[in-house]
Amino acid sequence: MYELGVVYRHIQRADRATAEALAALGSATVHEAMGRVGLMKPYMRPIQTGVQVSGTAVTVLLQPGDNWMMHVAAEQIQPGDIVVATVTAECSDGYFGDLLATSFQARGARALIIEAGVRDVKTLKEMNFPVWSRYISSKGTIKATLGSVNIPIVCAGAYVTPGDVIVADDDGVVCVPAARAVETLAAAQKRESFEGEKREKLASGVLGLDMYKMREPLAAAGLRYID
Amino acid sequence: MYELGVVYRHIQRADRATAEALAALGSATVHEAMGRVGLMKPYMRPIQTGVQVSGTAVTVLLQPGDNWMMHVAAEQIQPGDIVVATVTAECSDGYFGDLLATSFQARGARALIIEAGVRDVKTLKEMNFPVWSRYISSKGTIKATLGSVNIPIVCAGAYVTPGDVIVADDDGVVCVPAARAVETLAAAQKRESFEGEKREKLASGVLGLDMYKMREPLAAAGLRYID
Amino acid sequence: MYELGVVYRHIQRADRATAEALAALGSATVHEAMGRVGLMKPYMRPIQTGVQVSGTAVTVLLQPGDNWMMHVAAEQIQPGDIVVATVTAECSDGYFGDLLATSFQARGARALIIEAGVRDVKTLKEMNFPVWSRYISSKGTIKATLGSVNIPIVCAGAYVTPGDVIVADDDGVVCVPAARAVETLAAAQKRESFEGEKREKLASGVLGLDMYKMREPLAAAGLRYID
Amino acid sequence: MYELGVVYRHIQRADRATAEALAALGSATVHEAMGRVGLMKPYMRPIQTGVQVSGTAVTVLLQPGDNWMMHVAAEQIQPGDIVVATVTAECSDGYFGDLLATSFQARGARALIIEAGVRDVKTLKEMNFPVWSRYISSKGTIKATLGSVNIPIVCAGAYVTPGDVIVADDDGVVCVPAARAVETLAAAQKRESFEGEKREKLASGVLGLDMYKMREPLAAAGLRYID
Amino acid sequence: MYELGVVYRHIQRADRATAEALAALGSATVHEAMGRVGLMKPYMRPIQTGVQVSGTAVTVLLQPGDNWMMHVAAEQIQPGDIVVATVTAECSDGYFGDLLATSFQARGARALIIEAGVRDVKTLKEMNFPVWSRYISSKGTIKATLGSVNIPIVCAGAYVTPGDVIVADDDGVVCVPAARAVETLAAAQKRESFEGEKREKLASGVLGLDMYKMREPLAAAGLRYID
Amino acid sequence: MYELGVVYRHIQRADRATAEALAALGSATVHEAMGRVGLMKPYMRPIQTGVQVSGTAVTVLLQPGDNWMMHVAAEQIQPGDIVVATVTAECSDGYFGDLLATSFQARGARALIIEAGVRDVKTLKEMNFPVWSRYISSKGTIKATLGSVNIPIVCAGAYVTPGDVIVADDDGVVCVPAARAVETLAAAQKRESFEGEKREKLASGVLGLDMYKMREPLAAAGLRYID
Repeated sequence: MYELGVVYRHIQRADRATAEALAALGSATVHEAMGRVGLMKPYMRPIQTGVQVSGTAVTVLLQPGDNWMMHVAAEQIQPGDIVVATVTAECSDGYFGDLLATSFQARGARALIIEAGVRDVKTLKEMNFPVWSRYISSKGTIKATLGSVNIPIVCAGAYVTPGDVIVADDDGVVCVPAARAVETLAAAQKRESFEGEKREKLASGVLGLDMYKMREPLAAAGLRYID
Repeated sequence: MYELGVVYRHIQRADRATAEALAALGSATVHEAMGRVGLMKPYMRPIQTGVQVSGTAVTVLLQPGDNWMMHVAAEQIQPGDIVVATVTAECSDGYFGDLLATSFQARGARALIIEAGVRDVKTLKEMNFPVWSRYISSKGTIKATLGSVNIPIVCAGAYVTPGDVIVADDDGVVCVPAARAVETLAAAQKRESFEGEKREKLASGVLGLDMYKMREPLAAAGLRYID
Repeated sequence: MYELGVVYRHIQRADRATAEALAALGSATVHEAMGRVGLMKPYMRPIQTGVQVSGTAVTVLLQPGDNWMMHVAAEQIQPGDIVVATVTAECSDGYFGDLLATSFQARGARALIIEAGVRDVKTLKEMNFPVWSRYISSKGTIKATLGSVNIPIVCAGAYVTPGDVIVADDDGVVCVPAARAVETLAAAQKRESFEGEKREKLASGVLGLDMYKMREPLAAAGLRYID
Repeated sequence: MYELGVVYRHIQRADRATAEALAALGSATVHEAMGRVGLMKPYMRPIQTGVQVSGTAVTVLLQPGDNWMMHVAAEQIQPGDIVVATVTAECSDGYFGDLLATSFQARGARALIIEAGVRDVKTLKEMNFPVWSRYISSKGTIKATLGSVNIPIVCAGAYVTPGDVIVADDDGVVCVPAARAVETLAAAQKRESFEGEKREKLASGVLGLDMYKMREPLAAAGLRYID
Repeated sequence: MYELGVVYRHIQRADRATAEALAALGSATVHEAMGRVGLMKPYMRPIQTGVQVSGTAVTVLLQPGDNWMMHVAAEQIQPGDIVVATVTAECSDGYFGDLLATSFQARGARALIIEAGVRDVKTLKEMNFPVWSRYISSKGTIKATLGSVNIPIVCAGAYVTPGDVIVADDDGVVCVPAARAVETLAAAQKRESFEGEKREKLASGVLGLDMYKMREPLAAAGLRYID
Repeated sequence: MYELGVVYRHIQRADRATAEALAALGSATVHEAMGRVGLMKPYMRPIQTGVQVSGTAVTVLLQPGDNWMMHVAAEQIQPGDIVVATVTAECSDGYFGDLLATSFQARGARALIIEAGVRDVKTLKEMNFPVWSRYISSKGTIKATLGSVNIPIVCAGAYVTPGDVIVADDDGVVCVPAARAVETLAAAQKRESFEGEKREKLASGVLGLDMYKMREPLAAAGLRYID
């Protein structure tokens, strides 16, 4: 945990097909399917809108105002990966811009999740390289102090182990442990399969109160209607 | 005030035509016309852009991490209503998503104002169901504890009585007490009627200093020009 | 410093051509070229997206909930200026809307940078008048207390002297002292000239580790690769 | 609601003896006895420690950076009152210092609750005049714009009607509507009367699990113990 | 990770003597000795001052507005433990007060670390039961939804495994993995042993510049002295 | 402005006697006497209570997570100085602890004002070395990147030139430009001299409304009393 100055070259990535299938379900459904755990804090916001991605985590632990490890991480990226980065202390600096994005994209990265700042956001959007970050800032960083790549990290309140599946969209970012990816996909697909029918019923005017049979438990809980 | 476990079925809604006419004037003009009161805190932000709505308030008091009352509220919605919801303590959870939006829309709701989180924001925008919220979060909620529907609430610092008019746009959210809706509309329209002329003058290069006759009071207040 | 109740009519503006040339380089590159100083705090956000501007600063010191000085400032604007405003205490009120924007635009202002709130953001975007602000709020302001125009101010953590160059885009807002504008432009252009080549290399799969010759210093710092 | 420029001279104060008796019970117990409503946001913090007070509310609506109405409010104070003040927009200025405290104390005020800033806190503590505020700030205010005294206000998220009972201590600030003061006192005293016995049991090592008979409902909810 | 509805009864606690010896060194020295990792976010603040404690972690995962698991956790406490609790979403409610403190103290708990709110802080201080929390709030909680006890959690940004050593004082809260406790203690004691000598030198007027031999590296980095 | 990598050895300190005399007046009175400018943001809080100091500023510009320049600053301290430090980006790290405090105290420093974090706060209080900071954090810093000493800086929103007078107490921190120190002292003493008389009047029950002759302007502004 939190070893400094190390790069793990071989990580156990979740099954690629499973990882990719989770994108379509979205972070909210996946989070429900996980039992409502594994969510990053809602201050992680996308710089773009309407993008839904998933991939396997390459993790980065950075130092304040220092993005050296982002360059080290680039080499560890495999197609289908999502880079997940955090800093040893809260920092709003712009750790990532269009040059790193070019490199990450060339390596096959799907997205960046970073609990810190990014810059060149206009160009990043033009490049279709999706980013979820805590801050946007023009401020650059130095390259002086070691962090680590591919160690377990805590990013925005979520514990992320290298190889875990990351699902991100406009609602937020969820981390699915590699070992739970298959069961989570199945559970999420099951949830999803009921949604269409529910939506139709609700659209036709049926109330959730009736569809979910809530009237009795509400009455049991003491709900009083006053005319 | 703050009664728990109750649903008021019959509320005194502001006049529908008045409520609807306020949308076109926008939250800033309406707020001015009210005498600069009734505004929700600026942390209430729209998930969409460019939408301007108004409607009569159906209020909801929720419990932390629990959206049970949102389903109860759905039944109380009449066409032209806006649901206004708050929680007994600050909570970022996603209390509202595409299924509830489908139901609210089917009942004729115009929008949701919620001092908490929402999810499925991409779908909500596709559905053209406008939302102003404090947070966006994938995290779902349980259905276990009673709150209330259609009691007076404090939402984002504004006191909202069921039936009041809500006006919301990209600038924020204002609550107009039902009893003041007619006079506020008149005052707002009057303000608005002068705006075109003022805008033309300013566009032609006339200074506000002259148009508003500010030079004398500024001098009286002691303003010094230094060359 | 911080004189109240004064308007300086004659300020030393940075060379216009230099000021204009900085826009194309963007806030991140200009900030780097400055030696990473002069950046406003990242809570200053654009109300629009994709706009990149630069211009010479006309400064305004405002009082809480009072925008009187904005009208005084309008008269001091020359084509190519950017108005930079702050308040003696943090305030989220909407100090600026479409009427002031019409006036500023008629005077030739390029943009507004304000450490406070603005309103009418939908109209401002339609008018193509770019704004970077800390807040968006429908709440209007009074005109009762003097501040100052064209004195040195601290805006969002940056020290701004009238006539300095402001560069703003989606990444943030940078202030370049007038006396350093020429050298900063040169340095920024030099940085920019290398970017294309770097980008191509990275896009072709060359790693930053190799391009920037980082492997040796990383090893010297003690980085360990673990298989 | 939110009338500007008015002072209500005659307000219906809650019964004095009831109001005073609530102090001893503390904000947490009173809040429970109310059914968990009426609490101000937890950002309201005492400038002193260990003080527990209660009293009847004299309310003040202030303008940003302007404390004129505090002087108007002083005249409306009766012995046993607590002044409750808020601002039409968030403001950190120091609206209240040792001179106003001297005046309030001379009038018989028990405390000040203010959703804004105060100053002279060292002296206020020496004077034993308790204050709960959102901010502490040296910055003074002007006297230029009207607000109101003794109208219903929203202070830190709580709706306060003049004459309501305020209970404040190190845990926070609760508002008890005048009409509910008697029943709340009774309910709070009942809660309190059981506390001593519970505390003794728990101190002797009895677990809450057993004392509250939680083992069965926990098992019913599915709790699993793993050895 | 993040299993819900479970209680692990047997956890591997760090060696008791080691755990206790870390208190005297303080969170800053221990954090340095760990290589500057494992620190909770600085928003975790003590309700008391001057207390320095250490102990082995009993972890609790709570639901928003629900403290049921705190009662379950009480039974798992052994003398010398520190309870470390977090919530599945940010919540300011008062999860813990004097009754739970009485129970925890009777079980031998040394302290509570909670990323949420607590109440009865005056009494907690009188009881000498130390608490580090994110919020203080009078608001109570319900007992309706399962969380877990003694699973690995993320508390205020730090990953805590049951049995890890927690060190807390006025500077903050550090988590030392059980497996690293012995080496951390040794490293911290070594650091500490040099402090006295350094302090004496600095007190006598020797500069850190000389004591740490910084003049050369500063010159090498390009520092210029200007007279 | 914002030169990096430089140390100015000779600064123009404000007159020592004037600087010292300002402490007794306190930050609120001095801020008023300055015309309500020069105040640091209210998030700067003392780690101790009841201390009132003043002194001449030695300024430090730091890099994120790096306190190298604090050691460089120590050498520039003269008896009666107050060190004022900020970082190029917001950072909560503990830049300052008991060892640096020992050194600063040995050099004659009166206090530290830092827009970042500090640690060892228990010891700092025992040493009677007063500190106003934005954060408290156990996290240490590195010594790798140059900042500057004795250049003009922006600290917590206030512009501070080396040699300016800093006045700090429980209410906050004010910066008085050296050139204005004498006139500010005179103005502050004059304000102070009237306070005693005012306090006596108010204590005797005279209302501010009468003492400040506010009744007429209030009536002129339209204040209505309602019985």
